[in-house]
Amino acid sequence: MNRPTDESGCQPMLQSYLQDTWVTPKATPESAAGVHDAVTGDLVCHVSSQGLDLAGAFGHARRVGGPALRALSFHQRADLLDAVAAAVRARREELYALSARAGATLPDARYDVDGGIRVLRDYSARARAELPDAPILVEGPAERLARGEDFLGVHLVTPSPGLMLQVNAFNFPVWAPLEKLAQSVLAGMPTAVKPATPTAYLTAQLVRIITDADVLPPGALQLVVGSVRPALDLLGEQDVLSFTGSAATAEALRTHPNLVTRSVRFNAEADSVNAIVLAPDVTPGSPLFEAFVREVVTEMTVKAGQKCTAIRRVLVPRAHESAALDAISAGLAGVTIGNPSSDGVRMGAVVSLAQRDDVRRAVRKIAESGRFVHGDPDKVRVVDADPDRGAFLGTLLISADPDAPAPHEVEPFGPAATVLAYRDTAHATDRVVRGRGSLAASVVSDDLSWTTAFLQDVAPWHGRLHLLDSTNMAQTTGHGSPLPALRHGGPGRAGGGSEMAGTRGVVDLMQRTALQASPRLLNTLHAAPPSPGGESL
Amino acid sequence: MNRPTDESGCQPMLQSYLQDTWVTPKATPESAAGVHDAVTGDLVCHVSSQGLDLAGAFGHARRVGGPALRALSFHQRADLLDAVAAAVRARREELYALSARAGATLPDARYDVDGGIRVLRDYSARARAELPDAPILVEGPAERLARGEDFLGVHLVTPSPGLMLQVNAFNFPVWAPLEKLAQSVLAGMPTAVKPATPTAYLTAQLVRIITDADVLPPGALQLVVGSVRPALDLLGEQDVLSFTGSAATAEALRTHPNLVTRSVRFNAEADSVNAIVLAPDVTPGSPLFEAFVREVVTEMTVKAGQKCTAIRRVLVPRAHESAALDAISAGLAGVTIGNPSSDGVRMGAVVSLAQRDDVRRAVRKIAESGRFVHGDPDKVRVVDADPDRGAFLGTLLISADPDAPAPHEVEPFGPAATVLAYRDTAHATDRVVRGRGSLAASVVSDDLSWTTAFLQDVAPWHGRLHLLDSTNMAQTTGHGSPLPALRHGGPGRAGGGSEMAGTRGVVDLMQRTALQASPRLLNTLHAAPPSPGGESL
Repeated sequence: MNRPTDESGCQPMLQSYLQDTWVTPKATPESAAGVHDAVTGDLVCHVSSQGLDLAGAFGHARRVGGPALRALSFHQRADLLDAVAAAVRARREELYALSARAGATLPDARYDVDGGIRVLRDYSARARAELPDAPILVEGPAERLARGEDFLGVHLVTPSPGLMLQVNAFNFPVWAPLEKLAQSVLAGMPTAVKPATPTAYLTAQLVRIITDADVLPPGALQLVVGSVRPALDLLGEQDVLSFTGSAATAEALRTHPNLVTRSVRFNAEADSVNAIVLAPDVTPGSPLFEAFVREVVTEMTVKAGQKCTAIRRVLVPRAHESAALDAISAGLAGVTIGNPSSDGVRMGAVVSLAQRDDVRRAVRKIAESGRFVHGDPDKVRVVDADPDRGAFLGTLLISADPDAPAPHEVEPFGPAATVLAYRDTAHATDRVVRGRGSLAASVVSDDLSWTTAFLQDVAPWHGRLHLLDSTNMAQTTGHGSPLPALRHGGPGRAGGGSEMAGTRGVVDLMQRTALQASPRLLNTLHAAPPSPGGESL
Repeated sequence: MNRPTDESGCQPMLQSYLQDTWVTPKATPESAAGVHDAVTGDLVCHVSSQGLDLAGAFGHARRVGGPALRALSFHQRADLLDAVAAAVRARREELYALSARAGATLPDARYDVDGGIRVLRDYSARARAELPDAPILVEGPAERLARGEDFLGVHLVTPSPGLMLQVNAFNFPVWAPLEKLAQSVLAGMPTAVKPATPTAYLTAQLVRIITDADVLPPGALQLVVGSVRPALDLLGEQDVLSFTGSAATAEALRTHPNLVTRSVRFNAEADSVNAIVLAPDVTPGSPLFEAFVREVVTEMTVKAGQKCTAIRRVLVPRAHESAALDAISAGLAGVTIGNPSSDGVRMGAVVSLAQRDDVRRAVRKIAESGRFVHGDPDKVRVVDADPDRGAFLGTLLISADPDAPAPHEVEPFGPAATVLAYRDTAHATDRVVRGRGSLAASVVSDDLSWTTAFLQDVAPWHGRLHLLDSTNMAQTTGHGSPLPALRHGGPGRAGGGSEMAGTRGVVDLMQRTALQASPRLLNTLHAAPPSPGGESL
């Protein structure tokens, strides 16, 4: 097995981990994609999937990884998650160091790395508390289906004899694969991770840490660096494609002929144009107003705004528009931008120059109906870095026309947000809904009856609603944080998928089969050992 | 409002029911599709959607039907289902009579009509027992998300402000729309029914019965006769497309650009090549063996085999192959075929001459690796009917090579099944799985340990498993019957969808939103009245 040879833990040509071995793609630096340091612009590594035996890898997952995981009980699978968490924790400093190359400050890196470790531990605890110490789940109580006592119905939840192919976004190179791994392993399903190119070296190092620790069964975890296209024809009826990324890529995947013909399960979590709504009752200067401002500033600056849940639209009553613009601008003015490894820097770079240019285009489009209140997309002052070589952006606060389409449709995936003033509650509701389906929205209010009515109107358009008030503002985990207990994923624009949601998410990855049987058979089943077979074709 | 003018209850040009009015399409008999009596070949009616204002109809559902249903509690919506059930029951004889024109015997018609009434009543009882007398559902218990007591997580289940477009198959023109209506109404969502052309007149009569009774709020139920294509561009993020039919049509719908772009929820229940497996322990001549034979004969002949759940593959141990062929043939020999209204006729016609020809092609393809043991696709003896004008088929039992692909891939949607002899349990498992995902399979055995192992291997490939043994064979509701308590829908070839499954199916039609809030807000929510707003864009 080849070992990392340079201090970054990353080789010039990034390896994949297939069939329990590190494999170098058959590519030259010219035919591969180059990945550059977000801060310095230096080359970090090359990425390619050329010549990788994906059919062999997926076959290995199905023949070796799947049976090994399916033979374990939910509790034994939970033990694996704890072991993975311990392995990653022991070497997390390596991941923090690499994260800085992607533009992340230490708190950003912890959000990603420690957040991922927390999800593993949370899921292992949930599995032990909520799932049986058995390889399958019988969902009861048994219901009588006929007049007699001998024909009963239950639902049986069994592992699918396939694999989960993860196609991840660049922004959570550690948290995302661990979050999906947690559910996949608990569901008895091996996983193949396809990282996004700009941060593939981080996910590769994560996989190296896990495989070095030798805590998962062979075939349970593989890493496919490079293009995902060749993998799509290899998926079958028992596999799951779990995608996080842009709506455009989600569409291309969703309509792939092989996925459609074989009804391959597809879960999409696409970015969305998430909103925060300041209710009419919140007075500028009040502690709740200040909490609202902190929430906006945090969402704009954590990970340089590169979170799919980040706030993009700030809806405020007209009467409080200028107060909100002033307060948010003041908060942003205190944010030092620059080399994420330098002291006092609160916001680093976005992931790449291409990403920076995308954000510039997006904010200019939104500002067409308004103006930049804070920041300039073309100018940024940075600490300890070259603003031309690094992918830096200033914090960008826009004021725009709430009735223009762009603020509701265009997502600047960086440190930017748009303040939109609403006339009345109906206008606010209507504007929130113009996001056409979002991952998360925050509502800031102490008016219970206003909030209760408002949230019912906007709830069908959201995967998560974060209701901030004076009693919980000191305790909130924040607008942008998906939590293992809660469903993550939204309708419409947000992709219509669902992740996490506690152990329900695990069960959703498995096959739920209605079972009509006699009581004596159901009794046997409750005591049944795992079947050694069940291999997929 | 136009009334039916002929004794069949069907007009020459079938009307749609849009915006609470019966509407005649702007079509001529030449530009419309002709629907013929399955028994006599006589013209029943013409079907066309030409000139129908579908945009107006869907807008009406969203503006009028949705708010009316969302204002009701789950229990009040359950009352609507009871009222629909009573209305249909009061005039079910009309539906029985019309069913005969589609080739159905009286028991076939009852399966469809009374089955539909039963689903409505079952769902109303479940809603009262399992859902609150409130318009929304708060799924708890609340979980603490932070160290303090004031930041809690629950899931809120709210009605989507959209509509359910039903695209139904021809074979259950009454049961299918009622089954979907039951869940849609409980979910607070209006429904538009698009029936399949060959039996559209039956669904139209059902809708006439319901609307005559005036038991649903305006806009809650509409009928779109004719092509569904123009409707697909009108669906949005809050709508659901609920499809039952062929895998080919499911693919076309699933990849429709508007549905993909807007993440329109799509549920598919496609036909599949369902199996029954006789275990090695069941001796020919035993009561359980006889029950197995009855199950096969019933599945082949009820509704002339036109059930998406019907048994197509009969897997038997090699040692019992000839006994099985003999016994099933003997059972089929006793089935009188002909005019479904005539005394003594046990099996009527398939729905159309085109359907008959499809079945002939399918069975010939399957028989390429074997032979017809009972019946001849080109010959049939019928009672009280003209075998050339009516869509009659004899019962067709094929013996084929279990290792040939056709028996596992080709579905003759008529009174046909194929016996396949397996060598050992591993061979049986492997052959069942070759169906690539089925709605239902039966396993016939008194050997508990054999069944327990076998069912775990095949469960991930099935939506439902029906386990027949000596203790429950007198009580079973049968291989082919989906039940409201149980999930209906299978992976892969079967479309990957899910219907019914008790009240879980209702919740699945609604939006589940993670809610992070203070205890005082959650308390208010539990007591909240429905919001009058929440209208879709």
